[in-house]
Amino acid sequence: MNINLIPVASAAGTEAMSGATAVVFDVLRASSTIVTALSSGYRMVYPVVNVEEAVQIARERGFCLAGERGGQKIPGFPMGNSPLEFSTGPVAGADILVLTTSNGTAAIRKASTAEKVLIGSIINARAVARTAISEGRDIALICAGSDGLYALEDILGAGFVLMEIVATANSVPAMDDQALTALCLARYYQQDPLAGLMEANHGKKLLGLGLKSDLRWCSRLNLYDTVPIFAGNYIKGS
Amino acid sequence: MNINLIPVASAAGTEAMSGATAVVFDVLRASSTIVTALSSGYRMVYPVVNVEEAVQIARERGFCLAGERGGQKIPGFPMGNSPLEFSTGPVAGADILVLTTSNGTAAIRKASTAEKVLIGSIINARAVARTAISEGRDIALICAGSDGLYALEDILGAGFVLMEIVATANSVPAMDDQALTALCLARYYQQDPLAGLMEANHGKKLLGLGLKSDLRWCSRLNLYDTVPIFAGNYIKGS
Repeated sequence: MNINLIPVASAAGTEAMSGATAVVFDVLRASSTIVTALSSGYRMVYPVVNVEEAVQIARERGFCLAGERGGQKIPGFPMGNSPLEFSTGPVAGADILVLTTSNGTAAIRKASTAEKVLIGSIINARAVARTAISEGRDIALICAGSDGLYALEDILGAGFVLMEIVATANSVPAMDDQALTALCLARYYQQDPLAGLMEANHGKKLLGLGLKSDLRWCSRLNLYDTVPIFAGNYIKGS
Repeated sequence: MNINLIPVASAAGTEAMSGATAVVFDVLRASSTIVTALSSGYRMVYPVVNVEEAVQIARERGFCLAGERGGQKIPGFPMGNSPLEFSTGPVAGADILVLTTSNGTAAIRKASTAEKVLIGSIINARAVARTAISEGRDIALICAGSDGLYALEDILGAGFVLMEIVATANSVPAMDDQALTALCLARYYQQDPLAGLMEANHGKKLLGLGLKSDLRWCSRLNLYDTVPIFAGNYIKGS
């Protein structure tokens, strides 16, 4: 088993994903929101890149519309991209989400050239690590990044999954230096994952928007056992 | 003061270097070799990208020819790229080196669009940090990488310089998430920098070539106070 890490999905080719199990990270916050929603009663999430397409799909199929741009809820959308909005479960039976976010949903779509696509975060690190190992393929850790730039929080999320892979496999698998860096980063922040999220530049931006409770939620290591799997346009929990 | 880190010089544009003080890292081993040579009696190093050009310059000007490809001394060259070869000083007055290496010399040439170009490594981290601060500009940390790929050892070297910048400035300057990652990596490995070099994939390759003593040398934090400066084709110590 070989493990590679792609630090910024939008800047990467798809070679590293080919034949691999991909794990997509947008820790602040799309990944964490998807894991939370699927752990809290939502049946499926339909990730969409464009706002207009999201609005159209939600209208046509009666799905619940959720998303953000620039860290804030899109005007006219009933739901934003805070995991806390979804932790209490769906309202009035609207248990399928259409989600469009600045970085995460595009990264998920891009990863669809992989053999299997999982959604990873700090809050489901152990579960996603075990599923990725059990798939038996090479693993590509796909970090969404933030507006085309490297984002520490995504590398940190990948690092926590790597820590769990090392613990489960009881050895350090072959990995590239990007993945090795992520592993070190997670070990560095393992006593206080929230500190890592608060020091990251995108984390600081969300703090400036008053979203510290979101950061706190996204830092709760292994809160859930849900492993979201993206296939055929939909993300479902397992 | 803003600090940015470019993880792989060959893959980067030059915008981040413009108007900045650049610090170039090829920890295994060109940076460490240059610092060692200039601390041991060599007067200057002339970095060259191509082997043929290096041979020609050495012949025309009577310089000492040094270099490697694939981690090994270039056939016909009197000197390779091990810092240990240069730690005992020049032989028979040949105190100007022409150096061509797989990654480092190209990264140095690329950085020449910056306002000032310093050569950084683990062995001169503190000195280079102080010089970079005293220059008063933004700082661009340029990592050479290994054959176009991200190399952990260069990020680690940049991280040690960042640790010294933080200690000297007595605060954490504004930096991008790549630089922040490097800082965490150095803090993670600060008790044992050699472990970082040995875990990096390029470090493992050099270990396979029997070069553990080189890794040990390159891991000796703040061994020298020399700050190599590249200007007008030559690198000189200060």
